[in-house]
Formats: sequence, C-alpha cells, structure tokens
Amino acid sequence: MNTVSAWAALAAGGQLQAYEFEQGDLPADQVEVEIDHCGICHSDLSMLDNEWGIARYPLVPGHEAVGRIVALGANAPGLKIGQRVGIGWNSSSCMHCHTCLGGDQHLCVSAGRTIIGRHGAFANRVRVHWVWAIPVPDALESSAVGPLLCGGITVFYPLLHFGIKPTQRVGVVGIGGLGHIALKFLRAWGCEVTAFSSSESKHAEALEFGAHRVVSSRDKTAMRAINGSLDLILNTVSAPLEWDALLATLAPKGRLHFVGSAIEPMPLVPLKLIQKQLDVSGSPTGPRSAIDRMLEFAARHQISPQIERFAMSRVNDAMEHLRAGKARYRIVLDADFRK
Amino acid sequence: MNTVSAWAALAAGGQLQAYEFEQGDLPADQVEVEIDHCGICHSDLSMLDNEWGIARYPLVPGHEAVGRIVALGANAPGLKIGQRVGIGWNSSSCMHCHTCLGGDQHLCVSAGRTIIGRHGAFANRVRVHWVWAIPVPDALESSAVGPLLCGGITVFYPLLHFGIKPTQRVGVVGIGGLGHIALKFLRAWGCEVTAFSSSESKHAEALEFGAHRVVSSRDKTAMRAINGSLDLILNTVSAPLEWDALLATLAPKGRLHFVGSAIEPMPLVPLKLIQKQLDVSGSPTGPRSAIDRMLEFAARHQISPQIERFAMSRVNDAMEHLRAGKARYRIVLDADFRK
Repeated sequence: MNTVSAWAALAAGGQLQAYEFEQGDLPADQVEVEIDHCGICHSDLSMLDNEWGIARYPLVPGHEAVGRIVALGANAPGLKIGQRVGIGWNSSSCMHCHTCLGGDQHLCVSAGRTIIGRHGAFANRVRVHWVWAIPVPDALESSAVGPLLCGGITVFYPLLHFGIKPTQRVGVVGIGGLGHIALKFLRAWGCEVTAFSSSESKHAEALEFGAHRVVSSRDKTAMRAINGSLDLILNTVSAPLEWDALLATLAPKGRLHFVGSAIEPMPLVPLKLIQKQLDVSGSPTGPRSAIDRMLEFAARHQISPQIERFAMSRVNDAMEHLRAGKARYRIVLDADFRK
Repeated sequence: MNTVSAWAALAAGGQLQAYEFEQGDLPADQVEVEIDHCGICHSDLSMLDNEWGIARYPLVPGHEAVGRIVALGANAPGLKIGQRVGIGWNSSSCMHCHTCLGGDQHLCVSAGRTIIGRHGAFANRVRVHWVWAIPVPDALESSAVGPLLCGGITVFYPLLHFGIKPTQRVGVVGIGGLGHIALKFLRAWGCEVTAFSSSESKHAEALEFGAHRVVSSRDKTAMRAINGSLDLILNTVSAPLEWDALLATLAPKGRLHFVGSAIEPMPLVPLKLIQKQLDVSGSPTGPRSAIDRMLEFAARHQISPQIERFAMSRVNDAMEHLRAGKARYRIVLDADFRK
C-alpha cells in the first residue's frame, strides 16, 4: 500500500517517466484515493515547465482526479472506504484559521496544492486532507468528472460567489478547457451568454456549448456593437487582450473577472473603473461547499466537459496534444497501472 | 429671475471673474435653487485647469452646494418652494433607461454633471433636474452639508454598496477632503479603521477623525506589519502608489476601491487578483437613494466635514489655498452676491 506508481518529470519541461515512491503512514486527517481517471489542466503544464518558478523535481502532475477511497485516517469525518471521490487543485486546508472557519478553505494561507511541493494524481494513489476528498454524485460519469474539479469550479464559483442572476448578460473570453465548461454552466444558469473567441474554427461549437452569440474579439465592429452590454466577463485566457475594447463591452457596474493565471500586468486606469463603476477581480478554484453545489448542479443539468481520453501510459502523447493547442476541449487520462 | 450672477474662468487655469449670464424658461423637470454655500472639490480645480480635456469656457465651477428652491418646474415631484436642498456632482438623469430604472441614476449614460457643459454653483442660482435637488435633514448645518454631496457620498456609497459590515477592517489612503470624511463615516459604521498617510503632520488629526491607527505608507516595516489584514481599502489619492505593498495589506477576498480620479495606469497582475481572490474597483459619487441615506446617517451620528470658510467673492484666494495643498480639510464658499 505504501509504494505509489506514478508518472513524473525529472526536470523542467522533461518527458514524464514511470516513477515509484514510498509514502509513510497515512496521517489521521487524510484519505488515500485509488485513482481511476485524471484530467490535464493547463497548470499541470505550467508546473511541468516551471513557469512559476516553484516546481520541484521529480514532479508528478495531475489535480483533476476521480477514484475510490482505499484508506481512511482516524480523523477523516464524513467519508467511507470504497466511496467515490474527486480531487482538485487543493489538497489540504488548516480548517481553523479565520478564512477556513468562514468557509473559504480554498483561500487558507496554509492550504496545500495537489501538485505543489508534493505529488499529484498522474499516479495510482493520492492522499489528500479529508475536506478535499469530494464526494461525487452518482449521476455523474467518472471519466468526465475530473475536469469539473479544477477547470469547472474555477468558472462556476464566480457565478455563485457574485450572485449572478439568470437575467444577467455574461461573456466568456477564450473557448478552451475552462471556457467551454463556462458556456455550459452559464446556459443552464439562465443567462444571456456571449462567447469571445479569436478562433473562427470554434464559433459553431461555442454555440453548441451554450453561447447565444459568438463575437470575434479581433473584429472591432462586432466588439463595438455590444458596448455597454455585459454584466460579467469571465476571462479564461492568460495572454494580454485589447483591454480597452473589452472593458468597453461592460455595462455600468460590470465586472471583468480573471480565472486564467495571467502574469503580464494589465495597465488599468482607475478613472475608467470609476466612470462606469466597474470591478476587476480574480479567483482561484472555489471552496468545498461551492464544489459540492457545482457537482449537484452539473448532475441536475447533465453538464459535463467535452473530453478526449488517453490511457495514462500515453501521458506524453496527451501532454504533447495539449501543448500543441489541439485539446478539444479537455484531456482525461485513464489510469492503467499494472495491479 | 433669469439673470444669474456667478464666478467664471474665461480660460484654462485662469482666475475666476464676476460673470453674468441669462437663462431661459425653467424646464418642466427642473428646479431652481438659490445658493447659500458651495464647497470646493478637487474636480472643480481639474475642470478649471482642463485636466480632463473636456472643459468649455466661460466655466463656472461648483458642485457641492446648498440653498433653497426658488422656482419649481411643472414636473418636479416631491419638492416645495422654499425647501432646503443640496446639489452635488450630477445635475440630471434620464430616469427611464435600465440603469436609472434600477436606481443607479448616477450611472445613467446620459446623466448631466453640474459643472460639465453647463454652469455650476459658484453662482447665486443653479438649476438641476428634480432628482438631484436633494432634501437636507433639518439636523444638518447648511454650511457643512455641501462637501457631503460630492466628497461625502463618494466615500460613503462604497460602504453601502458593497455591504461593508461593522466587523470588517477598512483602510483609507489619503487624509484630505475625501479621506477625512471617510474616517468619520467608517468610525460611525463600526469598522476597524486604518488611515494611510505619507504626511506625518496629519497623523494626530486622522486619529481624531476616527482612525484606530495611522500607517505611514512610506514605512515598509509598518506596511508589512498589517499584511493580509484589510477587507477594504478606499483609495482617495490620484497619484500612483506602491501598489504591491498596498495590495499585500488586503485580506483574502479584500478589495482596493478607487475614488480618486487617477488617470495614470496601475499595472495590475491578474495572477495576484486570483491568488487572494481580490477585487479592484472604482465608483463615482452615488445614486440618489444612497445620498438620502448618507444624510440621515450623518445627521444621526453628527458627522460633518471639517471645513474652512471663505466668502464667495474671495473665491480666488480659496482656490489658491486648495492648490497649495493647504485646505484642512474642505473649503466652503459662502455666497455673498449683491441682492
């Protein structure tokens, strides 16, 4: 039970290789999950390539996992051996700071992240703190749940947190792993949904996912035509955008919300925020209670990400597919370790 | 009744001169107010100097006025001849767009501003749309009401709009015309109040206004000591700040809110918003309903700006005092036109 089989990179940007490591006794507040499937998120690639300068090697990526509990710590309440659970970006929270006590376990300053400073879920087994072993409703198919646990909650949580109403108008920038799930959620949420994409090839699919219209963000006339109309823009793109044109599409009291981990500064003129009373904000994944509600919502509305599946032993092909920008729209690895 | 006596600048940056102009019949939805007092706001100076490139001359500044209604249009409901009213930044709203119907008359895209493209309240009479002729509670002394109507509402409205709780921790950057009123409001609101000021000479007064502590924004050690603590920062300063140090003082889910009309871009890294789930926002004055509530709140808590009074005929001395950064903390002009 204490030897874990995994896929690890031994250096920044390297190929993933079969890798085994030992783990000690299971801490009392943790559970151990046998992994069935694990999605690939863009941040797995960012960590693999050490884009944020915080990676340590060997590095085992993977933080959109689904599996079954095979071991339970003595202080891991509310869970059972054999129970199906998901694992996302977060792996632990202190549960006793002001932020955790307030229900925001994802913002705990001492929170652990599944693939930072520890090994992730491109593996046969993963341990996490009980609060981040997330029960999955029966109605959801295992292979498609993983991408909801990081990409999904990242775009769902802002709707819940900001109290977005079904009468509001929401735009989604970037139709990729996160954006396509956002369109599905927003359609079910009842909003008027605008997809922004510079890639013409995705326009028809964006409409199928739930957009009421697709606007090419490079088409200045089309952009101007929707000026002053949007209450919320979810920006899933990490690259710099035409900020002035994008902010102009916001209605008074509108919000531009970042969920793509962009590190290049946006030059923001305070007077522009003031004139239309705008918000610019960002959020990382979401708290446990929001993930539970998202999974219920996805089950009720039969929402699942559009996925491409690879055996986990083909993880390097899968990473290459993602790197090439070919993923349509989220890749899921099926664990195939020898028993 | 149709000749107005005023103080006008004839060119950008010019001295104000005695100036008379004619006005036609009173429009049905407007009221005419005989001015008793008018505060000076920094935006009067910005317009006088044509900082924003939108000034037209002759320019009559003044948009923090108090007086009495002397004429009432046929369609100006809820008001009476002789009634004491205030006039702030806004002079008209269409009342029928989605934004107005939603209660946000201050964000109406066709709203008029008291000193933009029309003459303001450094005058014996001013006309405004009825919604912006704001009844003043009896308990408030006329001479000190004016600064509440622009500076006051600008710092009060965010507390109301964002639902700031008395259990929260709020910082105010800049102890000037807006900042000193913010400290008074926040103390009465029940919050823990931190004043940021680079001017040591204002520290003692900031405590008197209501701050629980004053932090010198240039003192890196003092800034670091409050890292992660503030739920809201009201930034009343127009100049660029040490943004990283300031954002670091915000708690998870904290907000940096701009009310000073800064036009120099703030370089904002989206990832920093995401990591702590932060908001950066701005707002201009506030809707009529919020101004009414602010005046009630000010009356109940005996809150008034700290003012220096000048006869309106000494308006150029008063402007010079403001320009020199000597105003402590808001200047009010007492109208002294010959009857």
